[in-house]
Amino acid sequence: MTEFAWPRGKTAAASFTFDVDAESAVLWDASGDWESVGARMSVMSHQAYGPLVGLPRILALLERHQIASTFFVPGHTADRYPEAIRAVVAAGHEIAHHGYLHEQPTALSADGEIDALDRGLAALADVAGVRPVGYRAPMWDLSWRTPALLLERGFLYDSSLMDADHPYELAVGDDGHLVEIPIQWALDDWEQYCYLPDVSGSGLIESPRKARELWQLEFDALRRVGGCWVLTNHPFLTGRASRAAELDELMGYVAGHDDVWTTSLGDIATHVRSLGLTPRSISPPDVPR
Amino acid sequence: MTEFAWPRGKTAAASFTFDVDAESAVLWDASGDWESVGARMSVMSHQAYGPLVGLPRILALLERHQIASTFFVPGHTADRYPEAIRAVVAAGHEIAHHGYLHEQPTALSADGEIDALDRGLAALADVAGVRPVGYRAPMWDLSWRTPALLLERGFLYDSSLMDADHPYELAVGDDGHLVEIPIQWALDDWEQYCYLPDVSGSGLIESPRKARELWQLEFDALRRVGGCWVLTNHPFLTGRASRAAELDELMGYVAGHDDVWTTSLGDIATHVRSLGLTPRSISPPDVPR
Amino acid sequence: MTEFAWPRGKTAAASFTFDVDAESAVLWDASGDWESVGARMSVMSHQAYGPLVGLPRILALLERHQIASTFFVPGHTADRYPEAIRAVVAAGHEIAHHGYLHEQPTALSADGEIDALDRGLAALADVAGVRPVGYRAPMWDLSWRTPALLLERGFLYDSSLMDADHPYELAVGDDGHLVEIPIQWALDDWEQYCYLPDVSGSGLIESPRKARELWQLEFDALRRVGGCWVLTNHPFLTGRASRAAELDELMGYVAGHDDVWTTSLGDIATHVRSLGLTPRSISPPDVPR
Amino acid sequence: MTEFAWPRGKTAAASFTFDVDAESAVLWDASGDWESVGARMSVMSHQAYGPLVGLPRILALLERHQIASTFFVPGHTADRYPEAIRAVVAAGHEIAHHGYLHEQPTALSADGEIDALDRGLAALADVAGVRPVGYRAPMWDLSWRTPALLLERGFLYDSSLMDADHPYELAVGDDGHLVEIPIQWALDDWEQYCYLPDVSGSGLIESPRKARELWQLEFDALRRVGGCWVLTNHPFLTGRASRAAELDELMGYVAGHDDVWTTSLGDIATHVRSLGLTPRSISPPDVPR
Repeated sequence: MTEFAWPRGKTAAASFTFDVDAESAVLWDASGDWESVGARMSVMSHQAYGPLVGLPRILALLERHQIASTFFVPGHTADRYPEAIRAVVAAGHEIAHHGYLHEQPTALSADGEIDALDRGLAALADVAGVRPVGYRAPMWDLSWRTPALLLERGFLYDSSLMDADHPYELAVGDDGHLVEIPIQWALDDWEQYCYLPDVSGSGLIESPRKARELWQLEFDALRRVGGCWVLTNHPFLTGRASRAAELDELMGYVAGHDDVWTTSLGDIATHVRSLGLTPRSISPPDVPR
Repeated sequence: MTEFAWPRGKTAAASFTFDVDAESAVLWDASGDWESVGARMSVMSHQAYGPLVGLPRILALLERHQIASTFFVPGHTADRYPEAIRAVVAAGHEIAHHGYLHEQPTALSADGEIDALDRGLAALADVAGVRPVGYRAPMWDLSWRTPALLLERGFLYDSSLMDADHPYELAVGDDGHLVEIPIQWALDDWEQYCYLPDVSGSGLIESPRKARELWQLEFDALRRVGGCWVLTNHPFLTGRASRAAELDELMGYVAGHDDVWTTSLGDIATHVRSLGLTPRSISPPDVPR
Repeated sequence: MTEFAWPRGKTAAASFTFDVDAESAVLWDASGDWESVGARMSVMSHQAYGPLVGLPRILALLERHQIASTFFVPGHTADRYPEAIRAVVAAGHEIAHHGYLHEQPTALSADGEIDALDRGLAALADVAGVRPVGYRAPMWDLSWRTPALLLERGFLYDSSLMDADHPYELAVGDDGHLVEIPIQWALDDWEQYCYLPDVSGSGLIESPRKARELWQLEFDALRRVGGCWVLTNHPFLTGRASRAAELDELMGYVAGHDDVWTTSLGDIATHVRSLGLTPRSISPPDVPR
Repeated sequence: MTEFAWPRGKTAAASFTFDVDAESAVLWDASGDWESVGARMSVMSHQAYGPLVGLPRILALLERHQIASTFFVPGHTADRYPEAIRAVVAAGHEIAHHGYLHEQPTALSADGEIDALDRGLAALADVAGVRPVGYRAPMWDLSWRTPALLLERGFLYDSSLMDADHPYELAVGDDGHLVEIPIQWALDDWEQYCYLPDVSGSGLIESPRKARELWQLEFDALRRVGGCWVLTNHPFLTGRASRAAELDELMGYVAGHDDVWTTSLGDIATHVRSLGLTPRSISPPDVPR
């Protein structure tokens, strides 16, 4: 069994990742009632801000700080905003899988999960010529059958679990494994910024200063323990001007630490795979009676 | 195609706008159950604070800072508080349309939308002798059919969408267009201050200091990108003494920037129309199957 | 018509008031399902902290700062904690009416409202020998018929409406009137501190520092406009040690302003009555169709 | 009757306690629907972070500060993570009872309560060889019958009520008694940090700086009144790196006060029992009619 280690000269890692949900994140509904939200032109425009304004602004920040990033793109977003997604590819960033219509895996049947995965792959191939190696479950809500479906499709990594401070090899079936790069809710912008009446959010909207404090404290702390800091931002939220300004400051802060490897999740997963770690098995908890 | 530009000497714009909802914002109910909230005398008085106390206080602030503003007035508010609305007109501010009983467009039939628009127009004409050129959807929830209805009634602009940092021409039908001046939830006071048990609000109430930080950071950031900062306050919320005191500070701050054009939305819309911009088409997202 | 004026030498007023809800605030349920909450021993103990610990602590603060206060006491609290309520009387503070079991007036029939008022009066008479002159609606939710019921029972004032910065005479029926001393949600501790799973609260709990900032900013601002600052705290919430410590600071701050009349609501109401103000009529809004 | 007193040289007490809920806290459902949450692999991993990462990190902090602590462990957690629980025992900390599957006592029948208690005892005995003397109700929601059930099973103390600033003897039945060590919601990390869509939380996530301010202010204030500060943290929440960093600071601050007795709840309960206090009776409130 090999020990976990970061590349030479690095003692921790950081990744700025983006879930490019656009309309899909609010259109998808387990009951199939997509019309009621889709009929709300203002709500749709709130989501469209992501690919139209937030995404170019974020690409400029990444360019300025020379940071390689990962964008999780639902197939629906790629189909609706092909140029925006091609601009991400052109800038050299990684495109990863995030469902077709941002379908929550645990609300789907097995066939539904397969369908969402395959339609997402088709859209990314068609629009951006990309075959993604990474996956993040919409709603960050992986089902117990998702890992095997990912492995069958040749994915290298998933980034939807929350049980570690650094990546690991997740055992899948009898002898497969998938790199897992864990995330956490405190490193997400939805809880800080999202408000959509009757659709999502707590009803409060935080100051970008507070969000940056929260994320930077966790960066400092994960750096000290040699962990992997994975921030998730949504272009329709953090793409807003003052939030992007704080993100700019945060990128400068993070990238200013030479001992931290700031890169895309794909790079991190490739490194983890190279370590030959013993895969870790996770099983669902027994529930009594 | 013309490029977007602010008037000579100005590199960004700002507008302090007010949704004068009063009772209508809580009375309106898609199911028609207006009695249960209307029976709550304290709730009604909470809303009445807007036209009775908040509005005069805000008018005094605008006068002191010499800022021209836009007031979105539901017809019901005009009918119930005619003197308050006439005072807004007398002070030289713009009156714009905000439904009759603050009806959420997406919860109405086509006939219901038409009825709410026409009754709102009639009330503003009767009470204030005004024919508004601007509209903002109650609940900021424009339907896909609203723009055409506005155009038929001769409106110049709408201010209910959220997909840009500056105004644009929104294509309507085959060859019409409407100026759109976008808004955003983070520049609204409802999420910061509103609490009405069983009616609205997250249950928390923020300090006016926090709200000012949030709004001022976004002003600074939109100014840097040449955008259009549109703040929305409700007299029944921000009209409270300490919130108005912070608004006073914020008005001084914003108006102290000579490079920013601080004015009403009507002025901004007129300017935008003069630019002869190519209208932009927006269509509802396809939803699969 | 007389102008409103504070007593000679005073340009504003302040009152620290307390809603001594104890168990009643969570037991009362419009549907009559009092057992499910009453069966929760921890929830009951959370409420009991008010009369057992919070109230004596608050009385000590008031004594130290020599502030006369008003305590709104549901009859049920008086019946369950008679010694605690007698201690309030013994300390020279005002006892006012707050329902019997904290019944929300707008959820009651006319007979139910009458019953709650009369049972509350009986309990305060029995326990504390008090005939209150002041009333505050439980849940701050006055119905349109409550004022007449109060007048019939000889009340001098109500403190449940939210439409002004200073007290006024509220017209009741054809020739009656009641002093109204308005309140506001931002000057309440429930939104800042209350959390009871499945019972009440937003789920967040604020720092006492934030609550003090909020309340003190509003004091400063209402003082500047000659208003009446009415803070409402609940002994089961603000009676906690660190919250009481901030309240202590706030009392020192408020009482340190000689131009502000810091006293009970009963004193304020008596003063207002002496001004001979023209009563103001308020009627429910018309709802269309 | 004896007066309450802390051990010689100490004028107040403090205890860092941990509810090691792991999966049980979200799996348990009064209606028996454990599958729907259990099917969510990401949610399960969010909870698993507690025993896998948070708990070892917290043990290291306690070791560094030489603080004895109490861990409330549901039987299900012990069965699923036996090594983690044995590590707590090996470090010399107290293990106490917290249900089997984190069952909320007030949602159970009498038989259900008995079953949860006995299965919890069996699991702690099997896994850790421990017979706990302390109990805390899952959801902090003691029923009125729980104290007698605890006494029958030989428990020394409960820590689920909220009606005092320091421990007391709670009368149980005609002549029994149980030490009660009160807690409060403001000294819990759930309200500050927890977010699980559709499962728990307000939707907001606070900065660890804010949580520390809140908890430290209450420590300072309870210390001044000679009270007992009982902090409750969950390893799956406060075990995160930056939150643990703030907890580290807080431990240093608390342990740096020599006049405060910082120890486990078991030590505190043993001391309280030695005082021979007169037990206090608490009865459910009468509800009228």
